[in-house]
Amino acid sequence: MTVGTVRPGGRTARVRAAVLQAAGDALVEDGFDKLDLAEIARRAGVGKTTVYRRWGTVAALVADMLDDMADQSTPRADTGSLIGDLRANAHLVLRTLTDPRQGALFRAIIVAAACDARTATALRTFYAVRIAEWAPCVEQAISRGELPAGTDATEVIRAVSAPLYYRLMISQEPLDPTAADRAAEAAAAAARAGAYAQTG
Amino acid sequence: MTVGTVRPGGRTARVRAAVLQAAGDALVEDGFDKLDLAEIARRAGVGKTTVYRRWGTVAALVADMLDDMADQSTPRADTGSLIGDLRANAHLVLRTLTDPRQGALFRAIIVAAACDARTATALRTFYAVRIAEWAPCVEQAISRGELPAGTDATEVIRAVSAPLYYRLMISQEPLDPTAADRAAEAAAAAARAGAYAQTG
Repeated sequence: MTVGTVRPGGRTARVRAAVLQAAGDALVEDGFDKLDLAEIARRAGVGKTTVYRRWGTVAALVADMLDDMADQSTPRADTGSLIGDLRANAHLVLRTLTDPRQGALFRAIIVAAACDARTATALRTFYAVRIAEWAPCVEQAISRGELPAGTDATEVIRAVSAPLYYRLMISQEPLDPTAADRAAEAAAAAARAGAYAQTG
Repeated sequence: MTVGTVRPGGRTARVRAAVLQAAGDALVEDGFDKLDLAEIARRAGVGKTTVYRRWGTVAALVADMLDDMADQSTPRADTGSLIGDLRANAHLVLRTLTDPRQGALFRAIIVAAACDARTATALRTFYAVRIAEWAPCVEQAISRGELPAGTDATEVIRAVSAPLYYRLMISQEPLDPTAADRAAEAAAAAARAGAYAQTG
């Protein structure tokens, strides 16, 4: 997606920032089903035609919002140990999901992805970017001898996230630092035991 | 899924079965937002007043559907080993989530729970019942010396489910037997390493 990347400080970027902000507000307040490009343009103080020409559909706008969130995601940690890196990752996920705005945004986007194929693809891309950013933590742990050779880095990073998203969407238990530490420790222990060794 | 099969009981039970079946069909086809008690009554071939008097709201009807699913859930395994029991649990979750009707139902109910407090409570209750059914697997593993004393049985059972629900709702990766085996093995390894020891 190259929309809005023309000049960081230019009009294009300002319009994109205002529209994404307005779209996020509307998504959190009303949900995906009620999103409306004309209403988002109104909230953003931007011409309706600009929004229609640039994004075209609500799904494309939500996909661009996820691109923007991926661009802004925190660089991976490099603490020198697997458990340190995975804890940093778990606490980043925790901060995202418990942030009042970002948590509500993720919940709304996950719900939208369950019903809309384009949003589902955008969400998958978002997580692929995040996972590629953090996978080197696992690769370094393999080269330090902390993990078996052939450990699937993607699976380890996903294993850190899974219990936290499970709490958010399924069991609705509190998302707290204990849950984040436990997610990191469980993923590290399972990885050390070879549970994420590549198959096939 | 046995909802809709003929069960013992009189007219009351038959009406309930027909209405829950119709509600499930409507939920899978149209989603929670479009559920309508009058339409469900029509599909079920049951009087509208009966449905209004007995359930009153769509959320109450979905809650009753979850109660019915909890009543019919498969009894826990007792294979004699932790990994055997957790694998049986993971494959039960896999079968549920990949069943065309049940998988769609769960997805629809999880989406509804993100927006509706009563459905969220009903979903929490459903999982509490399932977890209570399977927790003895972990308790037996503790008494056999396979797991550290003080291991949180609820957390171990949830850890088996989390990666599978994560695939369903978040990463949209395939739900296959390899994923189920891996979920069981990772939960067992983390539990053995003490990652689910009770805190506090």
